[in-house]
Amino acid sequence: MHLFYTPHIIGEAYQLDEEESKHCTRVLRLKIGDQVHLIDGKGGFFLAEIISDHPKKTTLRVISVEREYSKRNHYLHIAVAPTKNIDRFEWFLEKATEIGIDEITPIICERSERKEIKTDRSNKIITSAVKQSLKAYHPKLNHQITFKEFVKQAFADVKYIAHCDEMDKQSISSGFIPHQNYLILIGPEGDFSPSEIEYALQNGFVPITLGSSRLRTETAALQACFEINYLNR
Amino acid sequence: MHLFYTPHIIGEAYQLDEEESKHCTRVLRLKIGDQVHLIDGKGGFFLAEIISDHPKKTTLRVISVEREYSKRNHYLHIAVAPTKNIDRFEWFLEKATEIGIDEITPIICERSERKEIKTDRSNKIITSAVKQSLKAYHPKLNHQITFKEFVKQAFADVKYIAHCDEMDKQSISSGFIPHQNYLILIGPEGDFSPSEIEYALQNGFVPITLGSSRLRTETAALQACFEINYLNR
Repeated sequence: MHLFYTPHIIGEAYQLDEEESKHCTRVLRLKIGDQVHLIDGKGGFFLAEIISDHPKKTTLRVISVEREYSKRNHYLHIAVAPTKNIDRFEWFLEKATEIGIDEITPIICERSERKEIKTDRSNKIITSAVKQSLKAYHPKLNHQITFKEFVKQAFADVKYIAHCDEMDKQSISSGFIPHQNYLILIGPEGDFSPSEIEYALQNGFVPITLGSSRLRTETAALQACFEINYLNR
Repeated sequence: MHLFYTPHIIGEAYQLDEEESKHCTRVLRLKIGDQVHLIDGKGGFFLAEIISDHPKKTTLRVISVEREYSKRNHYLHIAVAPTKNIDRFEWFLEKATEIGIDEITPIICERSERKEIKTDRSNKIITSAVKQSLKAYHPKLNHQITFKEFVKQAFADVKYIAHCDEMDKQSISSGFIPHQNYLILIGPEGDFSPSEIEYALQNGFVPITLGSSRLRTETAALQACFEINYLNR
């Protein structure tokens, strides 16, 4: 069945915005009485029926709702330096949404070649992955922030920094506690600078390794996402 | 240090082909006496020095070699239906190479929308990922084959099929035996057909689930790759 993302849904009736109304009536050719699924991005999964198929103001009536649909048993926040090639960062957004993530923060580091992210565009990519993978929760994408600002104010039960410097590092699984609030820092191409690593350690981040392979930024971020989800199964 | 992929290296001297000679001398501007790393794709990791910087016939002399460089402790073969959008399949090739895979077979299934793969182009993507992630072993990419042909002749210690049909499925970790030869089937958009699933089960494949998320073909294939590598750490 067709799925719509309706973040502002309240109560029984909902009017699709102009773009989605057009998609619903002109592209999908849905008519009054047809049923669709809705997700609100906050855990609500709805069954609704079309009560007006106006091409610009399609209106839906909620038939039933399931709250906390496939609620996650942990909270994962990954703060990652956007890649020079934006496709790689956007690919990470899509894949992390499919596999399972709650919050993403683009961090600008000393060695970052990319200093800017178009949040709206990135959010659209997350939303389409949310719909494609039937997620009732929409991951939160924060605005970009510099590494030091972020680390200074970062809060989580468990804080990790994944870097490539030679030092004593543990794997995520060692001493792992499930169902926590996790925050993981992933550096840019060329890794975090020594002073950034030092600053993170001073602020309570634990250095981790993601295995012996040399991974690109976006692959490392996804590997971390995979491990946290896997260990919380 | 710069790395070259030299699959045909034998003995002490090696002549780069015309394209790599040009890259070495014109792009990287390397000169006689400069040192480079070489990988042969069969586990050999070499330190070599340039003894002739001819722009079309650059010649190298091997200084030292490490065999079975970062040899893997298991064998992973993933047979996956190429995606309709080839970028997604090529993305899988790159990421699986980074994370760790030994063999890939494109399988053409009943519901496959894409019936053809350009093996040369795909191999180039694998090779650049091999170089980028410093892998001394080059994953083997087989020519495409139909699902039934492949399943009939498929051989491995452990054979899995990942599909979305409602039936009793185990996760890879349940009863997992490390350091084996694993083969995993991943279906196309729209999944394997019931008769394909039935045929795989008749041929000794064990049905598995990759978790509760609805994953795209290339994400499911990478998730399987993640899990097998992770469980063999």
